[in-house]
Amino acid sequence: MKSLKKNNIIIGVDGGGTKTEAIVADADLNILNRGLSGPANLRNVDTLTAVENISRAVDLAMESISGVPQSVVIGLPAIKEEFSSGVADFKKELFKKGIFRRVSRNNVHIVSDQEIAFRSGTDGNDGILVISGTGAVVRGWRSKKDIKVSGWGYFADEGSAFWVGIKAYQAITRAFDGRAKNTDITRNAKKIFMFKNAIELNRIVYNDFKKVIPELSIAVDNSAKNGDSVAIEILKEGAGELALGVNLVIDKLNFKKQFPVVMVGGMFKSVIFKKEFQRLVKDKNAIFVLPNDTPAIGALKIAKKK
Amino acid sequence: MKSLKKNNIIIGVDGGGTKTEAIVADADLNILNRGLSGPANLRNVDTLTAVENISRAVDLAMESISGVPQSVVIGLPAIKEEFSSGVADFKKELFKKGIFRRVSRNNVHIVSDQEIAFRSGTDGNDGILVISGTGAVVRGWRSKKDIKVSGWGYFADEGSAFWVGIKAYQAITRAFDGRAKNTDITRNAKKIFMFKNAIELNRIVYNDFKKVIPELSIAVDNSAKNGDSVAIEILKEGAGELALGVNLVIDKLNFKKQFPVVMVGGMFKSVIFKKEFQRLVKDKNAIFVLPNDTPAIGALKIAKKK
Repeated sequence: MKSLKKNNIIIGVDGGGTKTEAIVADADLNILNRGLSGPANLRNVDTLTAVENISRAVDLAMESISGVPQSVVIGLPAIKEEFSSGVADFKKELFKKGIFRRVSRNNVHIVSDQEIAFRSGTDGNDGILVISGTGAVVRGWRSKKDIKVSGWGYFADEGSAFWVGIKAYQAITRAFDGRAKNTDITRNAKKIFMFKNAIELNRIVYNDFKKVIPELSIAVDNSAKNGDSVAIEILKEGAGELALGVNLVIDKLNFKKQFPVVMVGGMFKSVIFKKEFQRLVKDKNAIFVLPNDTPAIGALKIAKKK
Repeated sequence: MKSLKKNNIIIGVDGGGTKTEAIVADADLNILNRGLSGPANLRNVDTLTAVENISRAVDLAMESISGVPQSVVIGLPAIKEEFSSGVADFKKELFKKGIFRRVSRNNVHIVSDQEIAFRSGTDGNDGILVISGTGAVVRGWRSKKDIKVSGWGYFADEGSAFWVGIKAYQAITRAFDGRAKNTDITRNAKKIFMFKNAIELNRIVYNDFKKVIPELSIAVDNSAKNGDSVAIEILKEGAGELALGVNLVIDKLNFKKQFPVVMVGGMFKSVIFKKEFQRLVKDKNAIFVLPNDTPAIGALKIAKKK
């Protein structure tokens, strides 16, 4: 059993829409253990489920470690914007569970998922986070300013995998009925979803659109790599939408020196998308960062400073 | 009690997504009675519910009428494209119910909702139907040719009230976070949905998007009438998308003489939308028709010819 001084242990938690990850480290950010559990996004699950999953991930991470953590930082989506009235309830339930019964309440901090994602890519306080996963959001911090753009959910979130997927779906159906030229996206989408024609694709899409639509973005990237002009156009338009948000936040924050632009989410795995995005964010002070670490590491970094 | 010769009675049925309407008429299309019941769209309800609602609407319409109908035409969405394997089951259940137990099976015809909508605006066989309600579809007939374009559901259906509503939602959220200029659509949408800010709008939208999003199209039309350039642009783009489909079908069908373009659905209540649509459908042989009658009348017209 690893044994550490009580005040040497810190914990970072990323409570996401599909999973929760907790990481335990010492004060020098040496990782001691990790724990995984189910979703903790309050948009997807209720408070008790979120608390249960956070507690389980933390207890798993602490399983072979003695002592009580000195600082716990939990990153959660939307809690401050949409569920602020429920934070007290959330904490009340949390402090009934597992290790949290023994942690000083002042040492547990709930922050936004965007803050921990940002910190996973940088050690500084100022800069910009741009997420383009299933959803998209841009957030910037400078001194006391804190600005958020986009992040309105799947009917907006321009430049997200969902948005790219909708464009792909429309391109496929338009090509199918003759309103637009053929696209290689159809062929690549068939490889993923095994449909024979657009009517079958339709059944698949409307059966589970939250899962199927974002996955179409993979077909778009594969087709763009093959030189398909429709796919390339979609990726460039999406990158342009993200860059619009980032450039707006840069203008509002008026950075005087170099600052990080931390890029998080699956869309940045597309080289065409990423390059176009970086081309359109013209600020010469912008330093692009693709974090190697998970957001839970960002939570740990914040925990160290608390 | 109205009494007619047995072979003088015909029935038209429109089985829709929210309601089913049945109309009983004599052979001269004089309307004798109407009956209303719940939905019969197989995309929304199961076969037994659809059969139950059709039977109920017909029985209500036949309540004070003696005799057995000579011809019954039932218009249903998607049944031929998506539920063709279920038509036999559907008929089997139908012939167990109410008046249908006494009708000759050869005298009951199931046709597409698009055919009856088309016939509600014209007496001819050839021409084009364009629906822009919650969804959108274009369908054309000439001699034996039958072509359908659009109608892929709410993630496509360019130019529908849903499509217009999504554009409105994006315009509102973009204006809210500064990525786009302000739009009067926000003010008009607030009148409908009583939200204070975009975060509240978001809750309303994602709580029931199938209802809320199409209703935003009303705010768009109201703002367009006030001269709001964002709203006007959305309506013009939507009308352009519909016109693209119609022009494509016109090209494919190659009409040699005048033909009707039957316009069905709530979006055509917008004068700006309708005018732009008609402007972009340039064919000099196109005669635009806004039917006064419901689609059930179209079903009656077909029943008369059967």
